[in-house]
Amino acid sequence: MINMAKRIAAFGEVMMRLQVPGYELLSQASSLHYTFSGTGVNISSALARFGHTGYLISRLPSNAVGDAAEAYLRKLGVNSSMITRGGNYVGMYFLENGFGARPSRVTYSNRQESSFNTAPENTYNFAEIAKDIDIIHFCGITLAMNDQVRRHMKALAKEVKACGGIVVFDCNYRPAHWGEGGYAKAKPHYEDMLQLADIVMMNEKDAMYILGMQTDQTERQEQLMELIPAVADKYQIAVIAGTHRHINNDNTHSLRGFIYKNQAFTFSNLLTFSIYDRIGAGDAYTSGIVHGEIQGFSPEKTVGFAAAAGMLAHTIVGDTPMSSESDILRAMTEAVGDVER
Amino acid sequence: MINMAKRIAAFGEVMMRLQVPGYELLSQASSLHYTFSGTGVNISSALARFGHTGYLISRLPSNAVGDAAEAYLRKLGVNSSMITRGGNYVGMYFLENGFGARPSRVTYSNRQESSFNTAPENTYNFAEIAKDIDIIHFCGITLAMNDQVRRHMKALAKEVKACGGIVVFDCNYRPAHWGEGGYAKAKPHYEDMLQLADIVMMNEKDAMYILGMQTDQTERQEQLMELIPAVADKYQIAVIAGTHRHINNDNTHSLRGFIYKNQAFTFSNLLTFSIYDRIGAGDAYTSGIVHGEIQGFSPEKTVGFAAAAGMLAHTIVGDTPMSSESDILRAMTEAVGDVER
Amino acid sequence: MINMAKRIAAFGEVMMRLQVPGYELLSQASSLHYTFSGTGVNISSALARFGHTGYLISRLPSNAVGDAAEAYLRKLGVNSSMITRGGNYVGMYFLENGFGARPSRVTYSNRQESSFNTAPENTYNFAEIAKDIDIIHFCGITLAMNDQVRRHMKALAKEVKACGGIVVFDCNYRPAHWGEGGYAKAKPHYEDMLQLADIVMMNEKDAMYILGMQTDQTERQEQLMELIPAVADKYQIAVIAGTHRHINNDNTHSLRGFIYKNQAFTFSNLLTFSIYDRIGAGDAYTSGIVHGEIQGFSPEKTVGFAAAAGMLAHTIVGDTPMSSESDILRAMTEAVGDVER
Amino acid sequence: MINMAKRIAAFGEVMMRLQVPGYELLSQASSLHYTFSGTGVNISSALARFGHTGYLISRLPSNAVGDAAEAYLRKLGVNSSMITRGGNYVGMYFLENGFGARPSRVTYSNRQESSFNTAPENTYNFAEIAKDIDIIHFCGITLAMNDQVRRHMKALAKEVKACGGIVVFDCNYRPAHWGEGGYAKAKPHYEDMLQLADIVMMNEKDAMYILGMQTDQTERQEQLMELIPAVADKYQIAVIAGTHRHINNDNTHSLRGFIYKNQAFTFSNLLTFSIYDRIGAGDAYTSGIVHGEIQGFSPEKTVGFAAAAGMLAHTIVGDTPMSSESDILRAMTEAVGDVER
Amino acid sequence: MINMAKRIAAFGEVMMRLQVPGYELLSQASSLHYTFSGTGVNISSALARFGHTGYLISRLPSNAVGDAAEAYLRKLGVNSSMITRGGNYVGMYFLENGFGARPSRVTYSNRQESSFNTAPENTYNFAEIAKDIDIIHFCGITLAMNDQVRRHMKALAKEVKACGGIVVFDCNYRPAHWGEGGYAKAKPHYEDMLQLADIVMMNEKDAMYILGMQTDQTERQEQLMELIPAVADKYQIAVIAGTHRHINNDNTHSLRGFIYKNQAFTFSNLLTFSIYDRIGAGDAYTSGIVHGEIQGFSPEKTVGFAAAAGMLAHTIVGDTPMSSESDILRAMTEAVGDVER
Amino acid sequence: MINMAKRIAAFGEVMMRLQVPGYELLSQASSLHYTFSGTGVNISSALARFGHTGYLISRLPSNAVGDAAEAYLRKLGVNSSMITRGGNYVGMYFLENGFGARPSRVTYSNRQESSFNTAPENTYNFAEIAKDIDIIHFCGITLAMNDQVRRHMKALAKEVKACGGIVVFDCNYRPAHWGEGGYAKAKPHYEDMLQLADIVMMNEKDAMYILGMQTDQTERQEQLMELIPAVADKYQIAVIAGTHRHINNDNTHSLRGFIYKNQAFTFSNLLTFSIYDRIGAGDAYTSGIVHGEIQGFSPEKTVGFAAAAGMLAHTIVGDTPMSSESDILRAMTEAVGDVER
Repeated sequence: MINMAKRIAAFGEVMMRLQVPGYELLSQASSLHYTFSGTGVNISSALARFGHTGYLISRLPSNAVGDAAEAYLRKLGVNSSMITRGGNYVGMYFLENGFGARPSRVTYSNRQESSFNTAPENTYNFAEIAKDIDIIHFCGITLAMNDQVRRHMKALAKEVKACGGIVVFDCNYRPAHWGEGGYAKAKPHYEDMLQLADIVMMNEKDAMYILGMQTDQTERQEQLMELIPAVADKYQIAVIAGTHRHINNDNTHSLRGFIYKNQAFTFSNLLTFSIYDRIGAGDAYTSGIVHGEIQGFSPEKTVGFAAAAGMLAHTIVGDTPMSSESDILRAMTEAVGDVER
Repeated sequence: MINMAKRIAAFGEVMMRLQVPGYELLSQASSLHYTFSGTGVNISSALARFGHTGYLISRLPSNAVGDAAEAYLRKLGVNSSMITRGGNYVGMYFLENGFGARPSRVTYSNRQESSFNTAPENTYNFAEIAKDIDIIHFCGITLAMNDQVRRHMKALAKEVKACGGIVVFDCNYRPAHWGEGGYAKAKPHYEDMLQLADIVMMNEKDAMYILGMQTDQTERQEQLMELIPAVADKYQIAVIAGTHRHINNDNTHSLRGFIYKNQAFTFSNLLTFSIYDRIGAGDAYTSGIVHGEIQGFSPEKTVGFAAAAGMLAHTIVGDTPMSSESDILRAMTEAVGDVER
Repeated sequence: MINMAKRIAAFGEVMMRLQVPGYELLSQASSLHYTFSGTGVNISSALARFGHTGYLISRLPSNAVGDAAEAYLRKLGVNSSMITRGGNYVGMYFLENGFGARPSRVTYSNRQESSFNTAPENTYNFAEIAKDIDIIHFCGITLAMNDQVRRHMKALAKEVKACGGIVVFDCNYRPAHWGEGGYAKAKPHYEDMLQLADIVMMNEKDAMYILGMQTDQTERQEQLMELIPAVADKYQIAVIAGTHRHINNDNTHSLRGFIYKNQAFTFSNLLTFSIYDRIGAGDAYTSGIVHGEIQGFSPEKTVGFAAAAGMLAHTIVGDTPMSSESDILRAMTEAVGDVER
Repeated sequence: MINMAKRIAAFGEVMMRLQVPGYELLSQASSLHYTFSGTGVNISSALARFGHTGYLISRLPSNAVGDAAEAYLRKLGVNSSMITRGGNYVGMYFLENGFGARPSRVTYSNRQESSFNTAPENTYNFAEIAKDIDIIHFCGITLAMNDQVRRHMKALAKEVKACGGIVVFDCNYRPAHWGEGGYAKAKPHYEDMLQLADIVMMNEKDAMYILGMQTDQTERQEQLMELIPAVADKYQIAVIAGTHRHINNDNTHSLRGFIYKNQAFTFSNLLTFSIYDRIGAGDAYTSGIVHGEIQGFSPEKTVGFAAAAGMLAHTIVGDTPMSSESDILRAMTEAVGDVER
Repeated sequence: MINMAKRIAAFGEVMMRLQVPGYELLSQASSLHYTFSGTGVNISSALARFGHTGYLISRLPSNAVGDAAEAYLRKLGVNSSMITRGGNYVGMYFLENGFGARPSRVTYSNRQESSFNTAPENTYNFAEIAKDIDIIHFCGITLAMNDQVRRHMKALAKEVKACGGIVVFDCNYRPAHWGEGGYAKAKPHYEDMLQLADIVMMNEKDAMYILGMQTDQTERQEQLMELIPAVADKYQIAVIAGTHRHINNDNTHSLRGFIYKNQAFTFSNLLTFSIYDRIGAGDAYTSGIVHGEIQGFSPEKTVGFAAAAGMLAHTIVGDTPMSSESDILRAMTEAVGDVER
Repeated sequence: MINMAKRIAAFGEVMMRLQVPGYELLSQASSLHYTFSGTGVNISSALARFGHTGYLISRLPSNAVGDAAEAYLRKLGVNSSMITRGGNYVGMYFLENGFGARPSRVTYSNRQESSFNTAPENTYNFAEIAKDIDIIHFCGITLAMNDQVRRHMKALAKEVKACGGIVVFDCNYRPAHWGEGGYAKAKPHYEDMLQLADIVMMNEKDAMYILGMQTDQTERQEQLMELIPAVADKYQIAVIAGTHRHINNDNTHSLRGFIYKNQAFTFSNLLTFSIYDRIGAGDAYTSGIVHGEIQGFSPEKTVGFAAAAGMLAHTIVGDTPMSSESDILRAMTEAVGDVER
């Protein structure tokens, strides 16, 4: 479907991640490690690492925090030329690492006042942007922010479509962001995005909870195989991909990816692995799917590549994937080995 | 005037200070050192260190950041039993240390949404609090926040007055917080506080800029000696104290403290010293004045103690003074010495 | 038996823990992470975190180390108003973290000269203290120190009993502290404490080795079920609780808690979990038992709560438990989950 | 002369700087802070920070060190699209910070085998590069490397000249790199570069030692004023600029900049300041001169801007200047101030 | 065969190990932990820790890096009196720690120019050295360096033999160092060393690949049992020892050691363990074999001791073993235990 | 007098220095940097760095702390073969760095129970030691410890004298160690040592306060010039050397060294310098005097070398001097320069 497209943009907020080093709690420690990430950052960085140009469309304040964020994104390989400056704040979250029976804990600072979430109507020149890119990526976290942000998203998606570009949408529903009665509030906005999207990241839970679709199946796998084709059909989506994740008793995770395309499902092997950093690994999977589609990989290779990209992202410090295409291809074929020297 | 009072409360916001270690900029570094402070924190901690009970009256969120803040305040010696929990956020600021010709730089996160600044009307039981304390401290930074916070301040000041307590007010005008036309906006609120206050921290600039008082004098010292008695007289203030600070070419600072009481000025020696951490040193001076008044020190001893407390606070890491009464008394009398062992 | 009691004190030494970060040995590294702990600290902090007032009765030197210790205890939530100052030293231990087949290693500095262990006869006003508390906690490590410390312990236990308070005693026998012929030397002192105690932490090994009780049973479980009722009967102890721990080949530990009360045993589920920090986890179990008794939990809930508290304490950095009641209740009911955000 | 030019490239090696933190020696410490720098990096980064596009023309290995270098340069704002990959090594140097009477110490690893210094003949497409840039910067350190590197330099300078671009050359003679009989060996190569250059950084010592020019003057200032016009005349150089630096007894440095242009000298004020990091400050001065020329500043403003840029670079961690145009303009006009908040 | 020999030297290069702390990549982090190691360092340090005198015969530059290396070796217990100074560089490698599915990665700096690898012919006084030692150790990594180094090795081996000393040779073939057609290039040099050696570390792969020996067996164990006796016979080697290592799916390793001596194989138990630091563990095994031979342990004890030494070395930070003889003897007999206190 | 002697031993305690990094107090920080030092360590390390063999005669425990201490001493260049193992503890002190007006603060742990201070009578084989060394160094801190240590000191001094060795004694009186009535208690022990000593470190204050000598002079310089010759004469001391130190208002120190030998005083220049680490700098001065005497330097060169060694030691991290002979000779002749590269 897609072939060798090169210019990819992601629209989304840049978050400052303030992580307690090691396993102390915020009330025990005295220092924080900071990085800048966000779904859009992760996607554009990962695709830049695969050899494409990865833009981020976002808004940062003109102060020391905004400068630090932009420098960090450039270090990640993100092309920052579509970032505008204005507003006053960067959204932040604190991360305390869990260990074994104690889960990791995220505490947000007030995000609604961020430069991104308070961007006024004509902040971005979407018409210009749409001409300069081949693919645009959005996610459900952004969709949850506020009406103005949702207007930005939809306007940009339409411009890209109008210019012949590809729209990728990751459903990524976060209950905390939609609040009470969230699914009902979210549904029309998700439907708008699905109607505009060519590639969608989701699984059967999104179909059931967000879109309110029904099934008599009780097993996840059967639910998936019944509902995803229905979604693809209803919203005319070329590619739907996603994962099933299981957390094992020994703290390893098991992950199986799927891709639904041309009326057919393809599944990756079930991968089981240890976790260093859970956050952002879903974005690595998405970037693998997008890259596979761009390169014209077979569905088998695409879903295997995406699953391995996701697995490796769990072994990387920070939210943002750092693996090259060759790292991932090697992880698809080799057993865990000894030191590389 | 005051004698051996023991229970002191400060009303004010707890800020999370996120400091880049060493001399890197936020766009160079990757870790932050965090502490919790604020004028109220500094005052109540300093007075606790002098042997009094130092309460903080404030509001913190019921999350990991609020827990960390409260634990940190207890470590500083602050009695946290008058802190209420609610709201969602703690105000934060980033600090990049300056060096020589490059000044330190502070970048705030959005403070208006903090738990303290969004505390609704009946958050605090001021009637109860007023019974349990002898002295209450307020500052001009808090006064700049918003109308609700100002209502809290004035209500508390009145309750303490009504119970026979002492009101301390530090003018501490910060232009950035009042914005355009700030002095005009600030003046009526400052006047309300001055009318309620027994001990006021200010100097001639506050009289001229905030209160709009006029003088024909052109030298700071003469302006001070003309205007401070006028302020004391107009607002019926028992004690007015403050400092004159000069930044020398070799990056040392020179500081002289004054106290005006019983129609007479008393000045400290001019102290010249190196600076490790500038922030919060004014609060050390205030705590020295309050302690001198509590203990019934002579004006000479009070102003010398306060100036030495201020000087030592510049040599301490972080916003909050850490010197004991004996540390300060020794600094008043001795030259800088060799290692203490 | 006990109900909603609120003021709990622990009597014991404050130790400075000097830990090599990561997995280096003391002869490889150059920095140490320091904290202050001890059984009494852990118990009073854990119970303060559950909503009670947790006092520590101890003695610290009037120097920089004593100041640091007291500040640290306050940060942990310990009420320091029953700590006296005097003597010259704080006991210290160095901790080198083990990894896999290499066990962790503890090296003590000279502890007998500590402020706590050299406290002279009238250091503490036990009559006053006994009036202000509902529960007092002691442990076998303190009992091993020296005759003067043992006199303090027994005098305090008697005062609390006389005022109607509850005495908790954790047998916690450490062979290194009693030296040669240790059990024989220890027995009479343990018997004195057991006669004063209402709640005792121990298991069948303590009964056999310290108290010299005999059994024909060869399995731990049967030994436990024969000997613990005999101990309860002989010393008239209302509640006896403890754990059986097993170290698995994959370095996980398995733990099952028991409580014996009203002539009946109740056991927790067998919990199997990864270990971050082994030290102090037994104190978390004790604090769970005490809290369950205070709150009037059923034996099932008490022993489950204590076991989960113990499990979580193994996932926390440092000796001292940091989990809230709600953290523990959630760990009792939920599987290990994904990031909390 | 030059006006609003925007695309600037620097040709030079990327060095890995491995710095012992604080003031320990390499034989005392166990960790190093690493960054990537070099004269070309510093120049292109500084000019990017002033709003231009700053390219680096260099060669890095295709391995983890080369990846780290390129990411770091992007973070500094350097456009990395003209960097080629090949060879095996990055040049490195160890830096031990001096203190007071003890000077800083630099120890190089073997630099001749670096990717940059072993770049074969057709590594760079200079014809293409010359079309895409307005200004090219070279320095004497690069000139000292080896014959192949010198051939690259001269070929690139000629291409840029041929395309109408501006050539900047910083004499920057390092005795250690030229070895025995260095000046004689260096002279013809310096002359080649001077003949190609439009803007040259040097002072009277370079004229005397490298170019072998003679003067009867004995004072630096008179030597400068006699020799620089002679150099400008002989090699037809439009702008010559440089500094005189003096190290004071109190470890501050004093710096005065000059610019010689249109047959006239202009001098900056003498700036005296404390030093945080000495290395790379000369490059900040150069970038100020180039920026002033680009913007069409008056000579007074250009030399003042360059001197202030140099002064601020001494206050910044690392080799590479981090100040914005507005930071520098403010430093030109204001006294050292208090915290910016 | 050997008995209570005490003076052991190893001939080999000192490498500077520059390790990224934690699990970040070189392109994410900003600091490195540095140590100095190498096979010779590991062997001489390990044997010094067992009570022998462990010399290193090597060459280091007379600069800050050489000083740091020598200080570090002394700290490890290596006797540095046989180290000569000269040349300019120390070989270095960067280490990025792997996690789970992501392997560790080593990146070398240019090693051929190191002081050791450029040591001219008469650098070492081998005749003197041979008189002062009882045992000399070499390894295949050194043999791969260059012709001059190989001449040093063989000359030293012959001198030691001539003085009646014992020669230990560890085959340790590293494909990256020999390059294309490596086995053919390596074979004659290996044969020279095997003819001089008394104790050899190798397994069946070395026999097949380096020495080109053939077998019809397809299982590792049978290949080993057929080929090792053939090697011992052909080259007249008294002791051959080595290991079989298997990497399990859960990232643990399993290791079984063997020793072939007096026409008989002896095998250790299969040890399965978690890995903290993989590098250098083989040297711990070698040092265990050498120590066992020196002490006259039975083959069972020797191979068990060596395997336990190897296992413990995997739990130690850095390349160099840190376990004492008593640590290893305890690990041979005990299950993993609780904290040692 | 002395010439090219090579084997120097120092007798003294090894202390563990636990330093708070940066400028935080022990009650603010959470980590410590640890090193091992002591006057004897400093002297033997400094002389080893000058090319001699530097032994330490001391006693360390057989545990992890003792192992770390010995490894650290070897790293410093100290020959550890005269260190015995036994006892249980290493003496420790905590160091909080002062800043400007706030002095550094040292807090000791209990030192009397250290392995060194509890060494029983036949711990050391002084007869053997005396044969193997040319020079022995003692200091007044050791003399203050206890009777057993004093017996060791005097026995060793006598053995060395008997074997024709040189005895160095540094008076180094520390009031805190002698307690009340200290001078009277100390005097006979000092006299014993002075009678045995060939080279003594002291100044006029030691003569007046410890030895009770009287003078009518009121200026330090005149007191010195009257009393030192009297001491030399009375106790038959060949060389007496020492310093006058003055702490300036800008926190720099000024130091002038003197040496009295052959009835003549020689003084160094007055050196004024910034201080990084005050502790141990006196030992650097002593090591310079001893080295000058060994090498047969002129008194001018010896005192200049010692003063420069002392100055440089103030710029070094930690107690122990790290400068080579060439570093010191350069510091004697050059002004502070720019980076060495």
